[in-house]
Amino acid sequence: MKKAVVLLSGGLDSTTCAAMLVRQLGADNVIALSLGYGQKHLVELEQAKLIAKELGISHIIKELPPIFSGAGSTLIDADCPNPETTYEELAKSIGVSPTYVPFRNGNLLSAATALALVEGADTVCYGAHSEDARSWSYPDCSAEFIGAMACAIYIGTYHKVRLYTPLVNDTKYDVVVRGLEAYAPFELTHSCYNGARPACGVCSTCISRIAAFKQLGVRDPIDYAIVIDWRCL
Amino acid sequence: MKKAVVLLSGGLDSTTCAAMLVRQLGADNVIALSLGYGQKHLVELEQAKLIAKELGISHIIKELPPIFSGAGSTLIDADCPNPETTYEELAKSIGVSPTYVPFRNGNLLSAATALALVEGADTVCYGAHSEDARSWSYPDCSAEFIGAMACAIYIGTYHKVRLYTPLVNDTKYDVVVRGLEAYAPFELTHSCYNGARPACGVCSTCISRIAAFKQLGVRDPIDYAIVIDWRCL
Repeated sequence: MKKAVVLLSGGLDSTTCAAMLVRQLGADNVIALSLGYGQKHLVELEQAKLIAKELGISHIIKELPPIFSGAGSTLIDADCPNPETTYEELAKSIGVSPTYVPFRNGNLLSAATALALVEGADTVCYGAHSEDARSWSYPDCSAEFIGAMACAIYIGTYHKVRLYTPLVNDTKYDVVVRGLEAYAPFELTHSCYNGARPACGVCSTCISRIAAFKQLGVRDPIDYAIVIDWRCL
Repeated sequence: MKKAVVLLSGGLDSTTCAAMLVRQLGADNVIALSLGYGQKHLVELEQAKLIAKELGISHIIKELPPIFSGAGSTLIDADCPNPETTYEELAKSIGVSPTYVPFRNGNLLSAATALALVEGADTVCYGAHSEDARSWSYPDCSAEFIGAMACAIYIGTYHKVRLYTPLVNDTKYDVVVRGLEAYAPFELTHSCYNGARPACGVCSTCISRIAAFKQLGVRDPIDYAIVIDWRCL
Protein backbone atom coordinates (compact mmCIF):
# COMPACT_ATOMS: atom_id res chain seq x y z
CA MET A 1 0.00 0.00 0.00
CA LYS A 2 1.57 3.24 -1.17
CA LYS A 3 -1.22 5.70 -1.90
CA ALA A 4 -4.87 5.56 -0.85
CA VAL A 5 -8.23 7.14 -1.56
CA VAL A 6 -10.28 7.16 1.64
CA LEU A 7 -14.03 7.70 1.72
CA LEU A 8 -14.50 10.51 4.22
CA SER A 9 -18.04 11.16 5.41
CA GLY A 10 -16.95 13.39 8.23
CA GLY A 11 -18.03 10.83 10.83
CA LEU A 12 -16.06 8.93 13.44
CA ASP A 13 -15.21 5.82 11.43
CA SER A 14 -14.03 7.44 8.22
CA THR A 15 -12.07 10.08 10.13
CA THR A 16 -10.32 7.30 12.04
CA CYS A 17 -9.46 5.58 8.75
CA ALA A 18 -8.10 8.80 7.31
CA ALA A 19 -5.97 9.50 10.39
CA MET A 20 -4.61 5.92 10.39
CA LEU A 21 -3.68 6.20 6.72
CA VAL A 22 -1.93 9.52 7.30
CA ARG A 23 0.20 7.94 10.05
CA GLN A 24 0.96 4.96 7.81
CA LEU A 25 1.52 6.55 4.39
CA GLY A 26 2.08 10.24 5.07
CA ALA A 27 -0.39 12.98 4.30
CA ASP A 28 0.86 13.38 0.71
CA ASN A 29 -0.26 9.85 -0.10
CA VAL A 30 -3.82 10.09 1.16
CA ILE A 31 -6.71 11.58 -0.81
CA ALA A 32 -10.10 12.03 0.84
CA LEU A 33 -13.28 11.69 -1.21
CA SER A 34 -16.64 12.90 0.09
CA LEU A 35 -19.81 12.29 -1.87
CA GLY A 36 -23.21 13.89 -1.63
CA TYR A 37 -26.08 11.43 -2.11
CA GLY A 38 -29.00 13.53 -0.99
CA GLN A 39 -28.36 13.02 2.73
CA LYS A 40 -30.22 15.30 5.13
CA HIS A 41 -27.12 15.72 7.27
CA LEU A 42 -25.13 17.69 4.68
CA VAL A 43 -23.26 19.29 7.55
CA GLU A 44 -21.07 16.19 7.51
CA LEU A 45 -19.53 17.34 4.21
CA GLU A 46 -18.63 20.68 5.75
CA GLN A 47 -16.99 18.87 8.63
CA ALA A 48 -15.17 16.56 6.20
CA LYS A 49 -13.55 19.64 4.67
CA LEU A 50 -12.27 20.77 8.06
CA ILE A 51 -11.05 17.26 8.92
CA ALA A 52 -9.11 16.91 5.64
CA LYS A 53 -7.56 20.33 6.22
CA GLU A 54 -6.58 19.39 9.77
CA LEU A 55 -5.00 16.14 8.57
CA GLY A 56 -3.22 17.96 5.73
CA ILE A 57 -4.67 15.72 3.00
CA SER A 58 -6.21 16.70 -0.32
CA HIS A 59 -9.99 16.51 -0.45
CA ILE A 60 -12.39 16.01 -3.32
CA ILE A 61 -16.15 16.54 -2.99
CA LYS A 62 -18.57 15.33 -5.67
CA GLU A 63 -22.27 14.58 -6.01
CA LEU A 64 -23.61 11.13 -6.82
CA PRO A 65 -26.56 11.11 -9.22
CA PRO A 66 -29.91 11.75 -7.50
CA ILE A 67 -31.11 8.13 -7.56
CA PHE A 68 -31.38 7.31 -3.88
CA SER A 69 -34.62 8.98 -2.84
CA GLY A 70 -37.97 7.24 -2.85
CA ALA A 71 -36.89 4.03 -1.14
CA GLY A 72 -37.94 5.28 2.29
CA SER A 73 -34.48 5.83 3.71
CA THR A 74 -34.74 8.05 6.76
CA LEU A 75 -31.35 9.57 5.89
CA ILE A 76 -32.79 11.00 2.67
CA ASP A 77 -36.58 11.10 2.41
CA ALA A 78 -38.14 14.16 4.03
CA ASP A 79 -41.28 12.33 5.19
CA CYS A 80 -39.27 9.62 7.00
CA PRO A 81 -37.97 10.77 10.41
CA ASN A 82 -34.77 9.17 11.73
CA PRO A 83 -35.34 6.48 14.36
CA GLU A 84 -34.48 7.11 18.00
CA THR A 85 -33.31 3.70 19.13
CA THR A 86 -30.17 1.54 19.05
CA TYR A 87 -29.04 -0.20 15.86
CA GLU A 88 -29.59 -3.56 17.57
CA GLU A 89 -33.21 -2.77 18.37
CA LEU A 90 -33.75 -1.48 14.85
CA ALA A 91 -32.46 -4.68 13.30
CA LYS A 92 -34.55 -6.83 15.66
CA SER A 93 -37.78 -5.07 14.94
CA ILE A 94 -37.75 -4.69 11.18
CA GLY A 95 -34.86 -6.50 9.48
CA VAL A 96 -34.11 -3.73 7.00
CA SER A 97 -32.62 -0.69 8.67
CA PRO A 98 -34.69 2.46 7.99
CA THR A 99 -31.40 4.34 7.67
CA TYR A 100 -30.15 2.04 4.89
CA VAL A 101 -29.56 3.99 1.66
CA PRO A 102 -30.06 1.87 -1.48
CA PHE A 103 -26.68 0.27 -2.32
CA ARG A 104 -24.97 3.43 -1.14
CA ASN A 105 -21.64 1.87 -0.33
CA GLY A 106 -21.43 0.15 -3.71
CA ASN A 107 -21.79 3.56 -5.29
CA LEU A 108 -19.32 5.22 -2.92
CA LEU A 109 -16.68 2.51 -3.41
CA SER A 110 -17.09 2.52 -7.19
CA ALA A 111 -16.56 6.27 -7.34
CA ALA A 112 -13.54 5.99 -5.04
CA THR A 113 -12.09 3.26 -7.26
CA ALA A 114 -12.40 5.39 -10.38
CA LEU A 115 -10.67 8.23 -8.54
CA ALA A 116 -7.93 5.88 -7.33
CA LEU A 117 -7.12 4.92 -10.93
CA VAL A 118 -7.08 8.54 -12.03
CA GLU A 119 -4.84 9.55 -9.12
CA GLY A 120 -2.52 6.54 -9.35
CA ALA A 121 -3.54 5.21 -5.93
CA ASP A 122 -3.33 1.48 -5.24
CA THR A 123 -5.84 1.40 -2.38
CA VAL A 124 -9.42 2.37 -1.64
CA CYS A 125 -10.31 2.54 2.04
CA TYR A 126 -13.63 2.80 3.86
CA GLY A 127 -14.57 2.61 7.48
CA ALA A 128 -17.08 -0.23 7.73
CA HIS A 129 -16.86 -1.83 11.17
CA SER A 130 -18.31 -4.96 12.75
CA GLU A 131 -21.31 -3.28 14.38
CA ASP A 132 -22.41 -1.80 11.03
CA ALA A 133 -23.11 -5.29 9.75
CA ARG A 134 -24.44 -6.85 12.94
CA SER A 135 -27.94 -8.31 12.45
CA TRP A 136 -27.69 -7.27 8.78
CA SER A 137 -28.45 -3.68 9.69
CA TYR A 138 -26.17 -2.52 6.84
CA PRO A 139 -25.52 -5.37 4.41
CA ASP A 140 -23.22 -3.10 2.42
CA CYS A 141 -20.86 -3.10 5.40
CA SER A 142 -20.83 -6.89 5.83
CA ALA A 143 -17.76 -9.06 5.42
CA GLU A 144 -19.50 -10.85 2.55
CA PHE A 145 -20.13 -7.57 0.72
CA ILE A 146 -16.60 -6.35 1.40
CA GLY A 147 -15.13 -9.57 0.04
CA ALA A 148 -17.21 -9.38 -3.12
CA MET A 149 -16.45 -5.70 -3.70
CA ALA A 150 -12.76 -6.28 -3.03
CA CYS A 151 -12.77 -8.84 -5.85
CA ALA A 152 -14.80 -6.63 -8.18
CA ILE A 153 -12.46 -3.69 -7.55
CA TYR A 154 -9.26 -5.72 -7.94
CA ILE A 155 -10.42 -7.48 -11.11
CA GLY A 156 -12.20 -4.48 -12.63
CA THR A 157 -9.08 -2.29 -12.36
CA TYR A 158 -6.62 -4.67 -14.08
CA HIS A 159 -5.45 -5.66 -10.57
CA LYS A 160 -4.30 -2.13 -9.80
CA VAL A 161 -6.55 -1.21 -6.85
CA ARG A 162 -7.30 -3.09 -3.65
CA LEU A 163 -9.99 -2.50 -1.07
CA TYR A 164 -8.80 -1.90 2.50
CA THR A 165 -11.17 -1.97 5.47
CA PRO A 166 -8.98 -1.63 8.56
CA LEU A 167 -11.94 -1.40 10.96
CA VAL A 168 -13.86 -4.42 9.67
CA ASN A 169 -13.47 -6.46 12.87
CA ASP A 170 -13.77 -3.53 15.26
CA THR A 171 -16.59 -2.43 17.51
CA LYS A 172 -17.42 1.26 17.77
CA TYR A 173 -15.44 1.25 21.02
CA ASP A 174 -12.41 -0.16 19.18
CA VAL A 175 -12.78 2.54 16.52
CA VAL A 176 -12.68 5.29 19.14
CA VAL A 177 -9.54 3.76 20.66
CA ARG A 178 -7.83 3.48 17.27
CA GLY A 179 -8.87 7.00 16.36
CA LEU A 180 -7.45 8.43 19.56
CA GLU A 181 -4.20 6.50 18.97
CA ALA A 182 -3.95 7.96 15.47
CA TYR A 183 -4.72 11.51 16.65
CA ALA A 184 -7.94 11.65 14.64
CA PRO A 185 -9.50 15.12 15.01
CA PHE A 186 -12.67 13.80 16.64
CA GLU A 187 -13.62 17.32 17.72
CA LEU A 188 -14.32 18.12 14.05
CA THR A 189 -16.40 15.03 13.25
CA HIS A 190 -20.14 14.91 12.73
CA SER A 191 -22.25 11.78 13.22
CA CYS A 192 -25.82 12.86 14.09
CA TYR A 193 -28.28 11.63 11.43
CA ASN A 194 -30.48 14.63 12.06
CA GLY A 195 -27.69 16.96 11.01
CA ALA A 196 -28.04 18.77 14.32
CA ARG A 197 -25.20 20.74 15.90
CA PRO A 198 -25.03 20.30 18.86
CA ALA A 199 -25.73 16.63 18.04
CA CYS A 200 -29.22 15.45 19.05
CA GLY A 201 -27.90 12.62 21.23
CA VAL A 202 -30.94 10.43 20.59
CA CYS A 203 -30.68 9.14 16.99
CA SER A 204 -29.17 5.70 16.37
CA THR A 205 -25.74 6.98 15.42
CA CYS A 206 -25.57 9.42 18.36
CA ILE A 207 -26.52 6.59 20.73
CA SER A 208 -23.83 4.33 19.29
CA ARG A 209 -21.19 7.06 19.45
CA ILE A 210 -22.01 8.12 22.99
CA ALA A 211 -21.95 4.51 24.20
CA ALA A 212 -18.47 3.98 22.73
CA PHE A 213 -16.99 7.02 24.49
CA LYS A 214 -18.78 6.13 27.75
CA GLN A 215 -17.38 2.61 27.59
CA LEU A 216 -13.92 4.13 27.38
CA GLY A 217 -14.70 6.65 30.10
CA VAL A 218 -13.62 9.49 27.85
CA ARG A 219 -15.63 12.59 27.05
CA ASP A 220 -16.64 12.91 23.39
CA PRO A 221 -15.19 16.29 22.29
CA ILE A 222 -18.28 17.31 20.28
CA ASP A 223 -21.29 19.07 21.81
CA TYR A 224 -24.63 17.37 22.50
CA ALA A 225 -28.08 18.84 23.01
CA ILE A 226 -28.66 16.52 25.97
CA VAL A 227 -26.79 16.16 29.27
CA ILE A 228 -24.52 13.10 29.26
CA ASP A 229 -22.64 11.42 32.11
CA TRP A 230 -19.33 10.48 30.46
CA ARG A 231 -18.11 8.25 33.28
CA CYS A 232 -17.29 4.66 32.30
CA LEU A 233 -20.40 2.43 32.33
CA MET B 1 -37.15 -12.24 -12.60
CA LYS B 2 -40.15 -9.93 -12.60
CA LYS B 3 -38.90 -6.38 -13.10
CA ALA B 4 -35.52 -5.18 -14.39
CA VAL B 5 -33.37 -2.09 -14.64
CA VAL B 6 -31.26 -2.32 -17.80
CA LEU B 7 -28.22 -0.16 -18.44
CA LEU B 8 -28.88 1.37 -21.85
CA SER B 9 -25.94 3.09 -23.52
CA GLY B 10 -27.67 3.31 -26.87
CA GLY B 11 -25.28 0.80 -28.42
CA LEU B 12 -25.88 -2.62 -29.92
CA ASP B 13 -25.37 -4.75 -26.81
CA SER B 14 -27.48 -2.81 -24.33
CA THR B 15 -30.23 -2.32 -26.89
CA THR B 16 -30.29 -6.08 -27.44
CA CYS B 17 -30.57 -6.64 -23.68
CA ALA B 18 -33.42 -4.14 -23.43
CA ALA B 19 -35.30 -5.73 -26.31
CA MET B 20 -34.83 -9.23 -24.85
CA LEU B 21 -36.14 -8.07 -21.47
CA VAL B 22 -39.16 -6.43 -23.08
CA ARG B 23 -40.04 -9.74 -24.83
CA GLN B 24 -39.54 -11.64 -21.57
CA LEU B 25 -41.11 -9.33 -18.95
CA GLY B 26 -43.26 -6.90 -20.91
CA ALA B 27 -42.43 -3.25 -21.47
CA ASP B 28 -44.05 -2.17 -18.19
CA ASN B 29 -41.51 -4.17 -16.23
CA VAL B 30 -38.37 -2.80 -17.83
CA ILE B 31 -36.71 0.48 -16.84
CA ALA B 32 -33.78 1.79 -18.87
CA LEU B 33 -31.02 3.77 -17.15
CA SER B 34 -28.51 5.83 -19.14
CA LEU B 35 -25.61 7.56 -17.42
CA GLY B 36 -23.35 10.33 -18.57
CA TYR B 37 -19.74 9.87 -17.48
CA GLY B 38 -18.04 12.51 -19.60
CA GLN B 39 -18.01 10.40 -22.77
CA LYS B 40 -17.19 12.19 -26.02
CA HIS B 41 -19.90 10.28 -27.85
CA LEU B 42 -22.81 11.89 -26.00
CA VAL B 43 -24.93 11.22 -29.07
CA GLU B 44 -25.42 7.73 -27.64
CA LEU B 45 -27.62 9.18 -24.88
CA GLU B 46 -29.82 10.86 -27.48
CA GLN B 47 -30.15 7.56 -29.30
CA ALA B 48 -30.91 5.78 -26.01
CA LYS B 49 -33.92 8.08 -25.60
CA LEU B 50 -35.24 7.11 -29.03
CA ILE B 51 -34.61 3.40 -28.37
CA ALA B 52 -36.46 3.45 -25.04
CA LYS B 53 -39.36 5.24 -26.70
CA GLU B 54 -39.44 2.72 -29.53
CA LEU B 55 -39.43 -0.18 -27.04
CA GLY B 56 -42.12 1.50 -24.92
CA ILE B 57 -40.07 1.42 -21.71
CA SER B 58 -39.49 4.16 -19.18
CA HIS B 59 -36.10 5.82 -19.35
CA ILE B 60 -34.02 7.62 -16.74
CA ILE B 61 -30.94 9.67 -17.62
CA LYS B 62 -28.49 10.83 -14.93
CA GLU B 63 -24.92 12.10 -14.69
CA LEU B 64 -22.22 10.27 -12.77
CA PRO B 65 -19.84 12.51 -10.84
CA PRO B 66 -17.03 13.95 -12.99
CA ILE B 67 -14.30 11.64 -11.70
CA PHE B 68 -13.31 9.71 -14.83
CA SER B 69 -11.15 12.18 -16.72
CA GLY B 70 -7.40 12.35 -16.38
CA ALA B 71 -6.69 8.63 -16.67
CA GLY B 72 -6.01 8.85 -20.39
CA SER B 73 -9.17 7.13 -21.58
CA THR B 74 -9.69 7.89 -25.25
CA LEU B 75 -13.46 7.86 -24.66
CA ILE B 76 -13.16 10.88 -22.38
CA ASP B 77 -9.91 12.82 -22.54
CA ALA B 78 -9.80 15.39 -25.34
CA ASP B 79 -6.09 14.95 -26.03
CA CYS B 80 -6.41 11.16 -26.48
CA PRO B 81 -7.76 10.20 -29.92
CA ASN B 82 -9.70 6.95 -30.22
CA PRO B 83 -7.69 4.06 -31.70
CA GLU B 84 -8.41 2.81 -35.21
CA THR B 85 -7.73 -0.90 -34.85
CA THR B 86 -9.49 -4.05 -33.68
CA TYR B 87 -9.98 -4.79 -29.98
CA GLU B 88 -7.76 -7.85 -30.36
CA GLU B 89 -4.86 -5.82 -31.73
CA LEU B 90 -5.33 -3.22 -29.02
CA ALA B 91 -5.11 -5.81 -26.28
CA LYS B 92 -2.05 -7.43 -27.84
CA SER B 93 -0.09 -4.25 -28.15
CA ILE B 94 -0.65 -2.56 -24.82
CA GLY B 95 -2.52 -4.72 -22.29
CA VAL B 96 -4.71 -1.94 -20.96
CA SER B 97 -7.29 -0.82 -23.51
CA PRO B 98 -7.00 2.92 -24.26
CA THR B 99 -10.80 3.01 -24.36
CA TYR B 100 -11.08 1.64 -20.80
CA VAL B 101 -12.83 4.13 -18.50
CA PRO B 102 -11.71 3.85 -14.83
CA PHE B 103 -14.01 1.30 -13.15
CA ARG B 104 -16.87 2.59 -15.26
CA ASN B 105 -19.00 -0.53 -15.09
CA GLY B 106 -18.71 -0.73 -11.32
CA ASN B 107 -20.13 2.77 -11.17
CA LEU B 108 -22.85 2.05 -13.74
CA LEU B 109 -23.96 -1.16 -12.02
CA SER B 110 -23.97 0.44 -8.57
CA ALA B 111 -26.19 3.26 -9.79
CA ALA B 112 -28.50 0.77 -11.51
CA THR B 113 -28.71 -1.27 -8.30
CA ALA B 114 -29.76 1.76 -6.25
CA LEU B 115 -32.41 2.53 -8.85
CA ALA B 116 -33.61 -1.09 -8.82
CA LEU B 117 -34.22 -0.88 -5.06
CA VAL B 118 -36.05 2.42 -5.40
CA GLU B 119 -38.21 1.08 -8.24
CA GLY B 120 -38.87 -2.32 -6.68
CA ALA B 121 -37.02 -4.18 -9.43
CA ASP B 122 -35.40 -7.54 -8.65
CA THR B 123 -32.88 -7.49 -11.49
CA VAL B 124 -30.10 -5.32 -12.89
CA CYS B 125 -29.05 -6.17 -16.43
CA TYR B 126 -26.07 -5.09 -18.53
CA GLY B 127 -24.81 -6.16 -21.90
CA ALA B 128 -21.24 -7.34 -21.30
CA HIS B 129 -20.38 -10.02 -23.86
CA SER B 130 -17.48 -12.42 -24.27
CA GLU B 131 -15.47 -10.30 -26.69
CA ASP B 132 -15.52 -7.35 -24.28
CA ALA B 133 -13.41 -9.34 -21.85
CA ARG B 134 -11.20 -11.15 -24.34
CA SER B 135 -7.49 -10.52 -23.68
CA TRP B 136 -8.55 -8.43 -20.66
CA SER B 137 -9.47 -5.55 -22.91
CA TYR B 138 -12.29 -4.61 -20.50
CA PRO B 139 -11.75 -6.29 -17.13
CA ASP B 140 -15.04 -4.78 -15.92
CA CYS B 141 -16.81 -7.01 -18.44
CA SER B 142 -15.03 -10.22 -17.42
CA ALA B 143 -16.77 -13.23 -15.93
CA GLU B 144 -14.69 -12.78 -12.78
CA PHE B 145 -15.83 -9.18 -12.38
CA ILE B 146 -19.43 -10.11 -13.11
CA GLY B 147 -19.37 -12.86 -10.51
CA ALA B 148 -17.93 -10.55 -7.87
CA MET B 149 -20.37 -7.73 -8.64
CA ALA B 150 -23.28 -10.18 -8.69
CA CYS B 151 -22.34 -11.18 -5.13
CA ALA B 152 -21.82 -7.58 -4.00
CA ILE B 153 -25.19 -6.56 -5.46
CA TYR B 154 -27.09 -9.52 -4.03
CA ILE B 155 -25.55 -9.21 -0.56
CA GLY B 156 -25.54 -5.41 -0.46
CA THR B 157 -29.28 -5.20 -1.22
CA TYR B 158 -30.50 -7.61 1.49
CA HIS B 159 -30.74 -10.27 -1.26
CA LYS B 160 -33.31 -8.27 -3.19
CA VAL B 161 -31.48 -7.59 -6.45
CA ARG B 162 -29.63 -9.94 -8.78
CA LEU B 163 -27.29 -9.18 -11.65
CA TYR B 164 -28.27 -10.61 -15.04
CA THR B 165 -25.86 -10.65 -17.98
CA PRO B 166 -27.63 -12.56 -20.75
CA LEU B 167 -24.91 -11.91 -23.35
CA VAL B 168 -21.94 -12.93 -21.22
CA ASN B 169 -21.02 -15.93 -23.34
CA ASP B 170 -21.91 -14.36 -26.69
CA THR B 171 -19.71 -13.00 -29.44
CA LYS B 172 -20.68 -9.76 -31.15
CA TYR B 173 -22.10 -11.91 -33.94
CA ASP B 174 -24.29 -13.76 -31.43
CA VAL B 175 -25.47 -10.44 -30.02
CA VAL B 176 -26.58 -9.27 -33.46
CA VAL B 177 -28.48 -12.52 -33.99
CA ARG B 178 -30.19 -12.26 -30.60
CA GLY B 179 -31.02 -8.61 -31.17
CA LEU B 180 -32.61 -9.33 -34.52
CA GLU B 181 -34.63 -12.17 -32.94
CA ALA B 182 -35.88 -9.81 -30.22
CA TYR B 183 -36.74 -7.06 -32.73
CA ALA B 184 -34.17 -4.69 -31.25
CA PRO B 185 -34.37 -1.33 -33.04
CA PHE B 186 -30.80 -1.51 -34.35
CA GLU B 187 -31.50 1.35 -36.76
CA LEU B 188 -31.62 3.68 -33.75
CA THR B 189 -28.43 2.48 -32.06
CA HIS B 190 -25.13 4.32 -31.89
CA SER B 191 -21.77 2.63 -31.37
CA CYS B 192 -19.06 4.83 -32.93
CA TYR B 193 -16.59 5.98 -30.26
CA ASN B 194 -15.99 9.18 -32.17
CA GLY B 195 -19.64 10.14 -31.81
CA ALA B 196 -19.84 10.53 -35.58
CA ARG B 197 -23.09 10.20 -37.50
CA PRO B 198 -22.77 8.64 -40.02
CA ALA B 199 -20.51 6.33 -37.97
CA CYS B 200 -16.80 6.63 -38.80
CA GLY B 201 -16.44 2.93 -39.61
CA VAL B 202 -12.80 2.84 -38.50
CA CYS B 203 -12.77 3.03 -34.68
CA SER B 204 -12.56 -0.19 -32.66
CA THR B 205 -16.26 -0.42 -31.94
CA CYS B 206 -17.27 0.36 -35.55
CA ILE B 207 -14.87 -2.35 -36.77
CA SER B 208 -16.34 -4.87 -34.33
CA ARG B 209 -19.91 -3.99 -35.25
CA ILE B 210 -19.34 -4.08 -38.98
CA ALA B 211 -17.58 -7.45 -38.73
CA ALA B 212 -20.54 -8.96 -36.85
CA PHE B 213 -23.09 -7.87 -39.46
CA LYS B 214 -20.80 -8.97 -42.30
CA GLN B 215 -20.40 -12.38 -40.70
CA LEU B 216 -24.16 -12.70 -40.75
CA GLY B 217 -24.39 -11.34 -44.29
CA VAL B 218 -26.89 -8.72 -43.17
CA ARG B 219 -26.63 -5.00 -43.80
CA ASP B 220 -26.26 -2.90 -40.63
CA PRO B 221 -29.21 -0.47 -40.72
CA ILE B 222 -27.16 2.54 -39.57
CA ASP B 223 -25.18 4.79 -41.93
CA TYR B 224 -21.40 4.73 -42.24
CA ALA B 225 -19.01 7.33 -43.62
CA ILE B 226 -17.13 4.63 -45.54
CA VAL B 227 -18.28 2.24 -48.24
CA ILE B 228 -18.85 -1.29 -46.88
CA ASP B 229 -19.45 -4.57 -48.69
CA TRP B 230 -22.08 -6.26 -46.48
CA ARG B 231 -21.83 -9.68 -48.13
CA CYS B 232 -20.95 -12.56 -45.81
CA LEU B 233 -17.19 -12.89 -45.33
